[in-house]
Amino acid sequence: MPNIGIVGAGVAGLHLGLLLRKHDVPVTIYTDKTPQQIAAGRLLNSVAHHAPTLERERHLGVDFWPVEEYGYTCHHHYVGGSGPLRFRGDFSRGSSAIDYRLYLPKLTEVFQQRGGDLRIGALRTEDVEGVAGQHDLVVVSAGRGAFTSLFPRRPEYSPFEAPQRRLCVGLYHGVTPSEPKGVTISMSPGHGELLEIPMFSREGHVTALLFENIPGGDLAILADLKYDDDPALFTKTVLSKVAQHHPDTFERIDPAQFRLTSPQDLLQGALVPTVRADYAELPGGTFALAAGDAHAVVDPLLGQGANSASHSAWVIGRAILDDLGFDEMFCQRVAKLRSDVVLSAAQWTNLMLQPPPAHLLGLMGAMNENKAAADEFTDNFDYPDRQWRIVATADRTRAFLAKHGTVLP
Amino acid sequence: MPNIGIVGAGVAGLHLGLLLRKHDVPVTIYTDKTPQQIAAGRLLNSVAHHAPTLERERHLGVDFWPVEEYGYTCHHHYVGGSGPLRFRGDFSRGSSAIDYRLYLPKLTEVFQQRGGDLRIGALRTEDVEGVAGQHDLVVVSAGRGAFTSLFPRRPEYSPFEAPQRRLCVGLYHGVTPSEPKGVTISMSPGHGELLEIPMFSREGHVTALLFENIPGGDLAILADLKYDDDPALFTKTVLSKVAQHHPDTFERIDPAQFRLTSPQDLLQGALVPTVRADYAELPGGTFALAAGDAHAVVDPLLGQGANSASHSAWVIGRAILDDLGFDEMFCQRVAKLRSDVVLSAAQWTNLMLQPPPAHLLGLMGAMNENKAAADEFTDNFDYPDRQWRIVATADRTRAFLAKHGTVLP
Ligand SMILES: Cc1cc2nc3c(=O)[nH]c(=O)nc-3n(C[C@H](O)[C@H](O)[C@H](O)COP(=O)(O)OP(=O)(O)OC[C@H]3O[C@@H](n4cnc5c(N)ncnc54)[C@H](O)[C@@H]3O)c2cc1C
Ligand SMILES: Cc1cc2nc3c(=O)[nH]c(=O)nc-3n(C[C@H](O)[C@H](O)[C@H](O)COP(=O)(O)OP(=O)(O)OC[C@H]3O[C@@H](n4cnc5c(N)ncnc54)[C@H](O)[C@@H]3O)c2cc1C
Repeated sequence: MPNIGIVGAGVAGLHLGLLLRKHDVPVTIYTDKTPQQIAAGRLLNSVAHHAPTLERERHLGVDFWPVEEYGYTCHHHYVGGSGPLRFRGDFSRGSSAIDYRLYLPKLTEVFQQRGGDLRIGALRTEDVEGVAGQHDLVVVSAGRGAFTSLFPRRPEYSPFEAPQRRLCVGLYHGVTPSEPKGVTISMSPGHGELLEIPMFSREGHVTALLFENIPGGDLAILADLKYDDDPALFTKTVLSKVAQHHPDTFERIDPAQFRLTSPQDLLQGALVPTVRADYAELPGGTFALAAGDAHAVVDPLLGQGANSASHSAWVIGRAILDDLGFDEMFCQRVAKLRSDVVLSAAQWTNLMLQPPPAHLLGLMGAMNENKAAADEFTDNFDYPDRQWRIVATADRTRAFLAKHGTVLP
Repeated sequence: MPNIGIVGAGVAGLHLGLLLRKHDVPVTIYTDKTPQQIAAGRLLNSVAHHAPTLERERHLGVDFWPVEEYGYTCHHHYVGGSGPLRFRGDFSRGSSAIDYRLYLPKLTEVFQQRGGDLRIGALRTEDVEGVAGQHDLVVVSAGRGAFTSLFPRRPEYSPFEAPQRRLCVGLYHGVTPSEPKGVTISMSPGHGELLEIPMFSREGHVTALLFENIPGGDLAILADLKYDDDPALFTKTVLSKVAQHHPDTFERIDPAQFRLTSPQDLLQGALVPTVRADYAELPGGTFALAAGDAHAVVDPLLGQGANSASHSAWVIGRAILDDLGFDEMFCQRVAKLRSDVVLSAAQWTNLMLQPPPAHLLGLMGAMNENKAAADEFTDNFDYPDRQWRIVATADRTRAFLAKHGTVLP
């Protein structure tokens, strides 16, 4: 029986740890924060889990927020411009968004109940080798900030040197959910996107507004404005920007009720989308495998990061369960098995961050008229590899639309 | 609906053509021999199909020789030396060997009945581009001899510059099948192997003896001896070599009945194991994908070539059915999807052709004592990727045996 060390108790580390514990594999997770610190802390993100991730949760017995009750079933698209587009795509299986400050502590607790060993303490890069000495394999899933020197950036999948969006995400009262309940993806050409997400948090059902602002655009200020300096100004600014750029969401806002659920429920910042090496051999001969954001950071625009991290955890876990060694051959196999989903999520997201090529604009226009195409596009949020096969080239988008009886405009 | 061109009507081309016809995809197979020429010709090989290939045949509705009646269920191992080893490994699902002079013409006929277009005529490399102009994709499955300049050799998977075995394969009367009916794999260290295969041919149930002779060894002469010059000498020499090197098969031979089923039922030669590039872009922009022996030639020692070719055909066929373009992205996806099986078959075979490292000798010794390990090893003839994960390193073999409660000697 192998003995596995995991660094980081995010979704990647926990899904892997729980899968291994289900099969009685000894696992230690090393992480820098207690579940209590996570639970009491600032908003971490506004993660939606798609159907394949929810299925993994059911398999692990950690589906504490059943999708039927907490989930949603569609994407509402709004594309601004002189002739705005409005269309809906339905998922064949629902998604859901649970505040990670509820989700991660609960899964950490279950991990410990199921015999997982949890060690609290921040590690530095030079500590990883010592950890490795106590395990057959180390999985580094400590997020996008730590241990980056272990896993060099892969330029062929990392086209950007700087953030492409300046983020402002908060949880709000005062937004009536869309009908049917879904995520609204609102695009303001040249300025960025708003993702409006029905989320379950400590305050119950609330709305996450994730502003994906193009640097230099009219909305970028939202990433800088300090709530604590002047809460009223912040709220007013958000409202006016939504009114101007994201009218479909604005329509469902009651200005009198509109406010952040708490000063802690706001996160502002930016990240550089980066794909790193899959693994590294440590000086002692043990291999360290990168997973989740430690392996591939994507902009949250398409909600792929955590789902990709969970997929990666699953591939790693199953490989651990059925392989015989934790050598370079093992790491290469994992790299190959997860590459379709993980790299496609990165490539698709990176394409959508850039000024849209003609075939993407054409696809949006076509989906506005063709519900079946919009449904398949929406379902492919669950399968980024399928989506990438559609959007990678104009010819492919043309073939996709032809399948749905539509011509690329 | 794409339109696919296939060069070569071997197992790769036919399995792909039949899969595509099952889904009404227009397919043309270009090949240099008529089914009648194949049927009336010299022995082509002594191919055994393993369970995954038989399953594909059932899926295609070309299971004309049901495995229950024509198949076999195990491998009998004999390893010569001062203390010979004798052990059996059972398959969980049977294999079978049907003379390709029955098999290929029958499948070609069915391909045509199902609307496949068959064009007879030898193509040269410079003709491929013209063919490509009439299709969305060309699959080159014309065996190991033709079009090699299109697909460069990949040295990292092609360790040999010359044949590692000198082959002599013939169909014989006068060999009583083993009990239970199976393939006997007999090893004469330093001289080579004999594969004794229960085969169905025009003469009914016969025995294929495939001598895999190490160049310079005592058996290498079998690849040179001309049957037609002196049939009696040939038969006598074969008999005496079997008696000396492969005693377990010899025991089941009735010398009075022992003879080739026909002068045509003999094939002598040698091949250089070679893995080539997965695909090439033709000058007109169409892609040519290599499949089967055109992509990877393995020595027949472990019976992997045709099964790997069929697997590759399947991967290609399914990718054609579910993808939207036949560009480089398509070819790279096929390359990735088939790499586990195809490259592992090559790597495992190439390892077994060389003087055995200590861990392989240890594995043989351990399987002699441990039936469960021998069964898993045998079943993995169906799954060369799993086998390669066991034999690639001594540590992995040790872990495999540990799983079966045995220590690597
Ligand atoms: C605003 C926003 C919205 C998002 N929306 C979505 C979405 O809708 N869908 C989606 O799939 N993804 C989304 N994402 C992305 C998602 O949040 C991440 O991809 C995912 O959480 C990464 O998980 P992880 O396990 O790799 O890393 P993390 O969740 O970052 O976990 C890292 C872990 O390592 C620990 N750690 C860090 N440093 C150390 C150290 N030095 N020593 C020990 N432990 C350490 C941390 O405490 C933590 O436990 C969003 C991200 C943001 C910012
Ligand atoms: C003795 C022996 C035993 C074997 N035993 C096994 C075994 O037990 N199990 C196993 O899996 N594999 C075995 N193999 C390997 C197996 O035979 C091959 O891997 C397999 O047949 C390759 O199939 P293919 O479709 O790629 O090519 P082929 O079967 O070689 O087919 C090539 C096709 O292309 C046509 N063609 C060739 N040149 C041209 C041209 N210029 N223009 C047009 N058409 C052309 C040919 O006529 C033929 O139709 C054995 C091989 C040998 C030699």
